[in-house]
Parts: sequence; structure tokens; C-alpha cells
Amino acid sequence: MPDRSLNADTVPAAGPHDVPKAQQAVEERLIDTVLQSFADCEDPRLGQVMQALVRHLHAFVREVRLTEEEWDKAIEFLTEVGHITDDRRQEFILLSDVLGASMQTINVNNEACGDATEATVFGPFFVDDAPRIEQGGDISGGAVGQPCWVEGTVRDTEGSPVPNARIEVWEADEDGFYDLQYTDDRVSGRAHLFSDDEGGFRFWGLTPTPYPIPHDGPVGRMLAATGRSPMRASHLHFMVTAPQLRTLVTHIFVRGDELLESDTVFGVKDSLIKDFVQQPADAPTPDGRELGDRTWARARFDIVLAPA
Amino acid sequence: MPDRSLNADTVPAAGPHDVPKAQQAVEERLIDTVLQSFADCEDPRLGQVMQALVRHLHAFVREVRLTEEEWDKAIEFLTEVGHITDDRRQEFILLSDVLGASMQTINVNNEACGDATEATVFGPFFVDDAPRIEQGGDISGGAVGQPCWVEGTVRDTEGSPVPNARIEVWEADEDGFYDLQYTDDRVSGRAHLFSDDEGGFRFWGLTPTPYPIPHDGPVGRMLAATGRSPMRASHLHFMVTAPQLRTLVTHIFVRGDELLESDTVFGVKDSLIKDFVQQPADAPTPDGRELGDRTWARARFDIVLAPA
Repeated sequence: MPDRSLNADTVPAAGPHDVPKAQQAVEERLIDTVLQSFADCEDPRLGQVMQALVRHLHAFVREVRLTEEEWDKAIEFLTEVGHITDDRRQEFILLSDVLGASMQTINVNNEACGDATEATVFGPFFVDDAPRIEQGGDISGGAVGQPCWVEGTVRDTEGSPVPNARIEVWEADEDGFYDLQYTDDRVSGRAHLFSDDEGGFRFWGLTPTPYPIPHDGPVGRMLAATGRSPMRASHLHFMVTAPQLRTLVTHIFVRGDELLESDTVFGVKDSLIKDFVQQPADAPTPDGRELGDRTWARARFDIVLAPA
Repeated sequence: MPDRSLNADTVPAAGPHDVPKAQQAVEERLIDTVLQSFADCEDPRLGQVMQALVRHLHAFVREVRLTEEEWDKAIEFLTEVGHITDDRRQEFILLSDVLGASMQTINVNNEACGDATEATVFGPFFVDDAPRIEQGGDISGGAVGQPCWVEGTVRDTEGSPVPNARIEVWEADEDGFYDLQYTDDRVSGRAHLFSDDEGGFRFWGLTPTPYPIPHDGPVGRMLAATGRSPMRASHLHFMVTAPQLRTLVTHIFVRGDELLESDTVFGVKDSLIKDFVQQPADAPTPDGRELGDRTWARARFDIVLAPA
């Protein structure tokens, strides 16, 4: 593997240099013809996106001199990705995630804005209609794992509290599965709540644990074939919305987790790593909840929303 | 749309120039991390292909500044492509075809070799087990259309006849449908035969007519949204195989067809346009076949196979 392939700054020219000029002309003429076919597109943005897609797709095919057998395999792979995808499993999102395309899309749409909290990937496990909990409520819905008290505030970039922000939270259980991955229609490990008059929020969840993305499908086989792990760093998902402010889709990660450096969807950002402080079984809980002989943890996440 | 988007030579640099340097650094760091994740791939070719895919995919996302809504639509589109694909319909091949990716793959694998016949797209309608016919037999199998006598030779690039080459031919009927597109399991408009001792072949088929690719699915909707036609230029498919020679996948096109300039899968090459000479109803047929009061056509296709 040439060194240049590890450096994003050195994208090779579209036409490989060891290809005869006449052949390069054939290949470039085809690209011009395909680009021209989108020239009558009435929606200028759609035309721009499709033409850019064509240029980059053809540049890929030409650079690697994709073989017909590899093209066949690509078609077969995408067909498998399509066939395993259903209402509860979204293999195309997984594919985008493990190629870093999801995270790059997040990046280009969430340029840094003052101290605003950084965004990360959405993932395939959000649902629209998670139950509402009150402040201090429990999102676990019976999901197993160590209880974890999470609290924080929602503010704007000028430091003003944001009351009544809608806070969606969702996470896997300690076996590494989201409710959607069970077949019994359970709803657990997810809820939404609203920030209080001071922008504060608090709830019981589960201490996040590492888990593999679903890897019994084509994306998992691709990871195995390329020597990559399917593991995600431990995390708790947030989506926070409030009028006039940029919607924040993010996670918080667990400081000390050994997977922080190798998250398979590239979602980790330093600013999102938080202390999940372990508490002994006899430590009094913030809301007086009785946990019997169980240990618990607590974490703080102060959220800053950018202007819309 | 800037003019440069119509010219394959001016692929823009990966980092858009109006993006702040700090933001560009965030985006480039992500690419480096994703590329690095494939560094342990034991199969060097697979690692090379995946790293190139990552570079070009990220360059696309960054260049167009893909919005999260557009990313959602892309996931939804690919999901629909996956769900409409089954044993008889291959929407991913259609997608690759209408983006010119199939034709570009053909190009990079079929560099010109002397006078060898040019290749074009395979398409989604080939089947492995088409019936065998003898020389002069009829491939139509009941498919409707004007009878067409096709004859020619198979030779190598030194001009020697290639006997016993396997010649697969397939085509749509005059209503524009391949047998696979009907639901009654018919086998029609397809067959294979073998060249004779002098490399010659001859058979009855149907005069090719224009037809749309299947456009009632997501690919058809994309074509409509971008102002493109789903029509293919009239053609007859060939796949020719012989030991020690490069397999040829190609079509012949009908000279005078007004769609030659706008074939929606970009398959037309000048050298593949042939005269389909119309014959009056009373013209004697080459093999004495009685066609009653029907007109017919005849075409010649002399095939040259490159060395393997």
C-alpha cells in the first residue's frame, strides 16, 4: 500500500498515469457524457450533487481500475445490504457509519460555533415515539445494567439557560443490545424529557457499556474481511431540540473506555468524553432512590446549543 | 452550475476553499482516521479498494457539503433500491448503469486491443441457462417482433477464425420487455449457439427496438427528477467466450436510431452501430424460411476477440 493512500491531502489525479492517453480519453469522454446527461436538471442543487457524485464515483473506478469481478461483488454486497434492511435494521446506515461518511456529514453540517457542544453520529437505533419521562425519571424501562444518574443543563452560546428543550436519550443495555434488536417489541433504554425553567435536566439511565454494531450481516463481514473490529466505544445518545437553536445530535462517552481510540463508526470527540463516577452500593442517591446492594454511577453533561 | 463541473479534468481539490482552515483540519483528520482503520487489512487489494472508496466518498461529501437531510434521502433511496431488487430485478445494476459506472468499469477492463470488438454494458437481463440453438436457429422463443437474420464470424486479432466460440444472445421483444420482466416464467428472446469450423454463426432474432429501462422504481424516479429519459437505444446483446481469448460482452446497435446519442446507460460506441437492412416481405430469406407477408431485416456482426 503506497504511503500516499493514508494522507487525505494527496488524492491522486483522476487519470492514472500508467494508462495510455487514448484510453484516458475514452474514460474522460464517458464522464463528460454522463455529466452532460444531468445538465437539464431543473433543481440546481440536485444537478450539482449528482454531477459531483458522478465525478467522484468515476474517479474511484478509474483510480483502482475496478475489475468486473469486483464490480459484481459490489453489486452483490449492496444487494445483501438492501435485503437485510427492514423497519428494525438499517444496514445502509451501518455502512455509512463504518466508512466514516455519517461522521463526515455530521462534520460538514456542524462547524464549530463558539462553545457549542460537538455533534456526533445519529446511528440506526433512534425511534420517534420514545416515552416521555419527568425530571428524575428512569429511561431504562426494564433494560438491564448498572443504574447511572445523569444530570446537566441546556444553555445557548451566550450562556442563557434553555428551558423546555426536548431531550431525547437512548442507549443499549449491558448485553449490548438496543430494544429494537429484540424481537418482543419491548421499549426500553430510551425516553424523552424537557429541560426545566433553569435549563436543567436529570434522569436515571444505565452506565454505558461497549458493544458491537450488528455484525452478522454484510457490513460485519466487510469489517471482518478488512481486519476491523465491530466494537463501538461505550456511549449514551442525546438529541436536543429547542426553537431558534441548532438541533444537537450527539453522544457522551465514558472516560477510560479502552475503545475510545478505535470506535468503529469514528464517533468519538474529546469534548464528549465524560467522567462516569462509580459510586459504592451504600452511597446515597441524589433523589433518595433505593438501589439495595447495587453500585451505581453518575455523570454530568452540560449542553450548549448553537444558534440555528 | 459552474462550467468546471462538465469537465472531467478539473475535479476540485478535496477541501473546499471557503471552509475555515480549522474546520478543514477536522474533516481531514477524520479521513486519516478512517483510512488508518483499514491499514491492517490482510488482503492488500481489498485494503487499497476500501481506502480509495473512503477518499472519494469523503471528497464527495465535503465538496457538495452534503446536508443531513440529503444524507437521509440517500439512505432512503438506497433502501428502496435494495427492497425492489430480487431474483428478477436488479435495481443496483440499473443504478450503476445510469450513473455510467458500469460502462466505466467496462472501459477500464477492456482497453483497446488492435481491432478487437469493443465491449459495452452487461445489463441486468442476462441468464445463465438460456436454451441452445443450432446454426440458423431462432432465439425468439415466441417473443414478438420483426424477424431479423443476424450473421457474422468470430476471429482473433490475428484474423484466424475461432471455431466453437460460445455465443450468447439476448434481447427485448418489440414491446420493450425481456422475458424476465414477464411474470409467467417464459424463456424467450435469448439463446446460445456455437461458432462453426470457420468461426461463422447465423441465427434468427428480432430487429431491436428502443425501450425504457424499468423506471417504476427509485432509479426511474431519480431519472425523472433530474430530467433524464429512461430510454435505451435499440440493441441486441452478445456475450462471446472462447479459450485463451478475452470474453466479450457487448451489444450491436441499429444505425439511424434517434436514441444513439442519448442512451440512458451510455452503452453506445460508434464501432458497434450496425446496418439493419430492411427487406420487403417477398425477399427470399437466406435459409429459405417462409415468413408469409411479413417484412424482415438482416444485419452482419463480425466479431474480433482480444487475447485473454
